[in-house]
Amino acid sequence: MTQTLGVALLGTGRMAHVYGPKINAHPGLKLEVIYNPRMSSAQKAVAQYGGRPLDDLDIVLADASVDAVVIATPTDTHLDYIEKVAQAGKPIYCEKPLDQTLERVDQAMAALHAHPVPFMLGFNRRFDPDNKALRDAVQNGEIGQINMLMSWSREPAPPPIEYVRVSGGYFVDATIHDIDLLCWIAGERPVEVSACGSCMFDPQIGAEGDFDLTMTTLKMPSGALLHINNSRACAYGFDQRLEAFGDKGMVQTVNHRDDNLVRWDKQRTAAREPLKHFFLERYDQSFYQALDEFHSAIIAGRAPSSSAQDGRAALAIALACARSAREGRAISPDY
Amino acid sequence: MTQTLGVALLGTGRMAHVYGPKINAHPGLKLEVIYNPRMSSAQKAVAQYGGRPLDDLDIVLADASVDAVVIATPTDTHLDYIEKVAQAGKPIYCEKPLDQTLERVDQAMAALHAHPVPFMLGFNRRFDPDNKALRDAVQNGEIGQINMLMSWSREPAPPPIEYVRVSGGYFVDATIHDIDLLCWIAGERPVEVSACGSCMFDPQIGAEGDFDLTMTTLKMPSGALLHINNSRACAYGFDQRLEAFGDKGMVQTVNHRDDNLVRWDKQRTAAREPLKHFFLERYDQSFYQALDEFHSAIIAGRAPSSSAQDGRAALAIALACARSAREGRAISPDY
Amino acid sequence: MTQTLGVALLGTGRMAHVYGPKINAHPGLKLEVIYNPRMSSAQKAVAQYGGRPLDDLDIVLADASVDAVVIATPTDTHLDYIEKVAQAGKPIYCEKPLDQTLERVDQAMAALHAHPVPFMLGFNRRFDPDNKALRDAVQNGEIGQINMLMSWSREPAPPPIEYVRVSGGYFVDATIHDIDLLCWIAGERPVEVSACGSCMFDPQIGAEGDFDLTMTTLKMPSGALLHINNSRACAYGFDQRLEAFGDKGMVQTVNHRDDNLVRWDKQRTAAREPLKHFFLERYDQSFYQALDEFHSAIIAGRAPSSSAQDGRAALAIALACARSAREGRAISPDY
Amino acid sequence: MTQTLGVALLGTGRMAHVYGPKINAHPGLKLEVIYNPRMSSAQKAVAQYGGRPLDDLDIVLADASVDAVVIATPTDTHLDYIEKVAQAGKPIYCEKPLDQTLERVDQAMAALHAHPVPFMLGFNRRFDPDNKALRDAVQNGEIGQINMLMSWSREPAPPPIEYVRVSGGYFVDATIHDIDLLCWIAGERPVEVSACGSCMFDPQIGAEGDFDLTMTTLKMPSGALLHINNSRACAYGFDQRLEAFGDKGMVQTVNHRDDNLVRWDKQRTAAREPLKHFFLERYDQSFYQALDEFHSAIIAGRAPSSSAQDGRAALAIALACARSAREGRAISPDY
Repeated sequence: MTQTLGVALLGTGRMAHVYGPKINAHPGLKLEVIYNPRMSSAQKAVAQYGGRPLDDLDIVLADASVDAVVIATPTDTHLDYIEKVAQAGKPIYCEKPLDQTLERVDQAMAALHAHPVPFMLGFNRRFDPDNKALRDAVQNGEIGQINMLMSWSREPAPPPIEYVRVSGGYFVDATIHDIDLLCWIAGERPVEVSACGSCMFDPQIGAEGDFDLTMTTLKMPSGALLHINNSRACAYGFDQRLEAFGDKGMVQTVNHRDDNLVRWDKQRTAAREPLKHFFLERYDQSFYQALDEFHSAIIAGRAPSSSAQDGRAALAIALACARSAREGRAISPDY
Repeated sequence: MTQTLGVALLGTGRMAHVYGPKINAHPGLKLEVIYNPRMSSAQKAVAQYGGRPLDDLDIVLADASVDAVVIATPTDTHLDYIEKVAQAGKPIYCEKPLDQTLERVDQAMAALHAHPVPFMLGFNRRFDPDNKALRDAVQNGEIGQINMLMSWSREPAPPPIEYVRVSGGYFVDATIHDIDLLCWIAGERPVEVSACGSCMFDPQIGAEGDFDLTMTTLKMPSGALLHINNSRACAYGFDQRLEAFGDKGMVQTVNHRDDNLVRWDKQRTAAREPLKHFFLERYDQSFYQALDEFHSAIIAGRAPSSSAQDGRAALAIALACARSAREGRAISPDY
Repeated sequence: MTQTLGVALLGTGRMAHVYGPKINAHPGLKLEVIYNPRMSSAQKAVAQYGGRPLDDLDIVLADASVDAVVIATPTDTHLDYIEKVAQAGKPIYCEKPLDQTLERVDQAMAALHAHPVPFMLGFNRRFDPDNKALRDAVQNGEIGQINMLMSWSREPAPPPIEYVRVSGGYFVDATIHDIDLLCWIAGERPVEVSACGSCMFDPQIGAEGDFDLTMTTLKMPSGALLHINNSRACAYGFDQRLEAFGDKGMVQTVNHRDDNLVRWDKQRTAAREPLKHFFLERYDQSFYQALDEFHSAIIAGRAPSSSAQDGRAALAIALACARSAREGRAISPDY
Repeated sequence: MTQTLGVALLGTGRMAHVYGPKINAHPGLKLEVIYNPRMSSAQKAVAQYGGRPLDDLDIVLADASVDAVVIATPTDTHLDYIEKVAQAGKPIYCEKPLDQTLERVDQAMAALHAHPVPFMLGFNRRFDPDNKALRDAVQNGEIGQINMLMSWSREPAPPPIEYVRVSGGYFVDATIHDIDLLCWIAGERPVEVSACGSCMFDPQIGAEGDFDLTMTTLKMPSGALLHINNSRACAYGFDQRLEAFGDKGMVQTVNHRDDNLVRWDKQRTAAREPLKHFFLERYDQSFYQALDEFHSAIIAGRAPSSSAQDGRAALAIALACARSAREGRAISPDY
């Protein structure tokens, strides 16, 4: 039995450029096909990462060398591809989010129910070594009972307004990462959320009815309280921190930098470099580790971490946050 | 004109024991009188801190050596004493809170309006050197426009249930400190608050309808979002942190310890001691600095920082938080 | 029996201005007399710190209110004053160094032997709370057997060349502090020292045959190795660190700043302020604590920490360092 | 012209197991041959890392697929292999040290002079990203003129006594790394060294006339002073730090851990994990980067960093240190 899985990569956009090199670097994965409905795009990506270019999905799915499929296409196409790949019986790794509406997510889940292939949603931050170490520490009882979890995600600069318009809103686009991470660490999902937001960086974002600054509180069945701190701008880089507080103590993750030097001069002492620029730099390793989880789970015949259910729950929570911010009241997510 | 103010200290409880030595240590203050309606208590305190014991407030207020009055009596007596001392025309330093209800606070403010003596409320954390340095940095524009402020106050252990019962509730008893501090740093007051709480440490607290774990969000007129993080228990000491985030950067305060050593061994590296035990240890210096502000303001003929209005606003916000936590919706404080 | 000691302060120079306020702040010390052979200087100091001005030492020593004497005069007068005060039978606190030559130190010790009054040498750094905490940790076995001790003392800027000329040389003037501190922590004295120096900041210092940059190694009877790192210039303030390394771990002290804020901006993250400017700022508290040790020892009838013997040993080691740097070989101190 | 170099790896010991996977991971290197005079050892290594097993060096060197040779054999065979590979005209990467005696190093250098092939000595710590960043900062003038450099290398536990016996002594075996690193950062070599050592961990090491604890001082032509701090034991892991101090400031490197969490509990706050275990873990990446330098230099036709001359100088300095520690005096290295 071979441990190497032939992979078809669907899509040639930004996330495909993240996954291409990671598939190549993984000893158990082989990039067989890069698919794009536009052959020229597929060919360009193949020139960079190898494999064969294809523009016909049926041919991709019929290809015997393709053992698994990585979906890295635009969000609004995920559902379509999931249905087709599931029907073809191939394991699926799908970049997050599954979709921006619960209705379409439910359709995807129905398809996966009808054709139960291994499915993994790309909540890559779970697979970051530091985040994983924090979860391990918490799950191993280092802090005792969880009382509070906190997550900071402050991005270096607001995205283009065109991106904001199709992003599903700040909660669905970005907070969803913190939501999934914290629920995964907590081992439970909130009974109630309350969120509030404002727009202080880019007035165009506010004009779209969206926020670029939010604070979110999740109340868990155990009584634990969770705080999520999001900003679309951050002068000193991509600020990513977790804090888990329990009755026996606290564990925290720290920010990452390219350069670990400590500097002392006339103005500042014990100073460090600005942070890693953004998620591609900060979480580079997590994408590899996520693919590794996908590979290991398939080989072992077990369900991968980060399921479609996790994706649905995170979306339901994010949508509840958005509604809470709009309506000024606590909302119970629609699980 | 003398720069030394004769002080009458009203009360002989825990806070009087904080102020007694600080009055003695201040070169511009002289402890002339310690007052308690029970003469034996006044005498005992005088044996420790000096001055003359008195049990008759009229005599205290008629005493020519008494230039100013420090009220450190039980909270429910503050209003009475404020009215009497104001009537006597003497400057007042009053331990916080002014009172637990807006009605009685308004009565006190009416008394101060009728007899406009210098009045200072003991929001001592403003006068902690680190907190003050953070405010100065923010006000000097170091972080640009304020986008987020965060305050952590985690106490080492829940108070006795008897204390909880008369405390006015966690928001009014404790969160009020963070509220005042953050509004003072922000230079504005929230238009809306939302809070939630739970009880995870002492079920008796929950049985009283109170919380021992809360998260509070304040939304400011500028759009800035504020987070307050409170816990009635903390394994590693009295956790006190501030974080101010703006479009140019961030400033934070750090925790305090008795011992500054950094320790490395088989189990842990770069480790520090547990934190200062509680507020008397952590904020010891702030009480002195608060009295110094009181003294300086009177000598200079200006209004002291931390006014009755500040106290009323903080109480209104704390009450709105309590209501928000009960009702699960955002509340506008009743300024 | 009174626990308060009347103090005569000899000298009105820089160190007298350090001790004056500390004597006044100590509840067990009373500044009775300030002595200077020039009455006008004594009067000026008295105007600042209180006490009575005197210019005749015999009258000082005959004064019944004077229970103890603090010698803060120029170094080359220490011996004279020690002899006279010892003869008068009064306890002596003497600013360091006892003297710059072993011959004169031996004379002082002979005087103290003939008139055995309590004597304390002002190695103030022993009494700094952090340094003391490190020694306590080491003596309590936290790091197991001591293998290495390291001390950094980097001064903000070279002193005036006039000071350098009479300082006894860098090792005798400055390294002696680190020597005393490390030997006190180690609980033993070196069998051999080797040192080397250079002049990189002020060529005038080199022209005097002195160094402004030195590294010193002490080899202890136990086998432990000690490193002392001295510089007459330091861009970021007064760098003062200790590191104690043993077979069970390591403890370190950290630098001090006026402002404890942590700053994050476009250029630097997690940055701290420059360090306390120099020894008066960094070790301010240690002078008070040193006087407290002097007071406690006298009241308790025990010998104060930091004896004349300690001073002689530290000088012998410092002189050995100077010789080692000149001769390029290891030297055994002349104990 | 192909940018990929076919590599013959000589040796199958510990260091060969370090280089094997790194050669495979490097896109510009191809492991063609693994050589060991015992065919069975070569075959075993090939089974792990690929390539072809060979036990005849002449065949290796005649193989057209072999563009470069990595020598990872026992130290006492380096000279022999260097002579033969140089004669065959192939570029050489040789694990450090070149040899333990200056005589044999000079022979190797003569061979390289006669057959001037590209040669790189495996001073891997130069290629560690943090060490490189510190050197870059220093060379870019961040700290101004270099006044002091310090290097700590404390190993987790003493090596087996059999290793110690053939190691060439602690200075030649271990300090040589710090020496090379500091001279490379300084851009100059010492005019004089003084060192001292003791034996506090393993008495067998002392019985061999060797040390397990040393402090070394290097005096540079510029006047800069360098300190090296070595220990054969360290309770908290492999302690690796650099500190560069200049007239404009200081830069430091920090220790590495597997886990970046910050932990707070009843006993310790802000605590970190123990350090990476030893050099294979701490400097894993540096071996890859060193091979990358080797590859880049060959492709670019320039001399690799870390030359035979650097190796000779470092050895001469290490031998001078050993002699200084024995003789108790400063020694000028025999360059």
